[in-house]
Amino acid sequence: MQQQTILGIDPGTNIMGYGIICAKGTTISLVKMDILKINTKKNQLEKLLDTFNFISDLVNTYHPDSMAIETQFLGKNVQSMLKLGRAQGVAIAAALHAQIPVFEYAPTKIKAAVTGRNNSSKEQVAAMLQYIFQIEAIPTFDATDALAIAYCHYLQQTNTINSQSKTTKSNSWERFVENNKDRIIK
Amino acid sequence: MQQQTILGIDPGTNIMGYGIICAKGTTISLVKMDILKINTKKNQLEKLLDTFNFISDLVNTYHPDSMAIETQFLGKNVQSMLKLGRAQGVAIAAALHAQIPVFEYAPTKIKAAVTGRNNSSKEQVAAMLQYIFQIEAIPTFDATDALAIAYCHYLQQTNTINSQSKTTKSNSWERFVENNKDRIIK
Repeated sequence: MQQQTILGIDPGTNIMGYGIICAKGTTISLVKMDILKINTKKNQLEKLLDTFNFISDLVNTYHPDSMAIETQFLGKNVQSMLKLGRAQGVAIAAALHAQIPVFEYAPTKIKAAVTGRNNSSKEQVAAMLQYIFQIEAIPTFDATDALAIAYCHYLQQTNTINSQSKTTKSNSWERFVENNKDRIIK
Repeated sequence: MQQQTILGIDPGTNIMGYGIICAKGTTISLVKMDILKINTKKNQLEKLLDTFNFISDLVNTYHPDSMAIETQFLGKNVQSMLKLGRAQGVAIAAALHAQIPVFEYAPTKIKAAVTGRNNSSKEQVAAMLQYIFQIEAIPTFDATDALAIAYCHYLQQTNTINSQSKTTKSNSWERFVENNKDRIIK
């Protein structure tokens, strides 16, 4: 089965999370997960250039086959959304310019892909990813959110996300809790 | 005095206006003004790629020294703003990638630059630009809005926009009406 590298990103105006995974069939591994801290002293256009250059560097270094991004983010004001949209736009442009296809997923779909539930908390998503990828120390949620997006795209590619019963059995939050009773704070 | 070419753009999800002007001192001329109609049957990511490629083509063809864009657009819902932000983001990325500096101006500043009044209508802005650039037939407002952005940046560069009294005298809507009495519908 063909190997594929997926880059998941969670761009923001001051911090961008990213997670890169490598998948071959049902075997997946974490390549890198971190955040880019954007200098808050820079103006918005300089920040956008940093985001564009950083994504271009990631693409040149890790040669992802696809990039995945979160599609929407409700509840913010219009000004914040314009800034968020611009950050997403430059990130998308960096990938498209390198001829890397971009995919987008709704937040609920991403959460459901990771935990089996579409209303999971960031903590639950992070804990589940720690379990799936055997990560020792979890960084910030900006990074785990990006990793969740990459993982969601992996599942979408392998169609397991469409098989809800299968996903729920093998990959649900309930199953995770059942297997990790020692980690539950009582 | 050095010659400069300015690209003004007004990106949207389905239509992007653009205006290119060439300036040498106080002599300015229109190079091109038009719109890009983006295929509405395409998905949002395909549309963004079209925008990126189109701006890249404009940059390669006209070699602008700078690109100018409108900074904000209030009153839309958050979902529209995310889409608008993405469109602006890919356009900004196309320019920054080609090492062309990007400048942004608030809508009120753009209107004031063209007509001397920050609450002018699109019709007033278009008519004023028709007068300044001696344009025979005005295309859509998407194109004139983009031309207005380029013109605003030109004035900003030459500092005439900061000299409010000078701008008001030489370039105001009132002055335009005074000189074009035959064009007033009574």
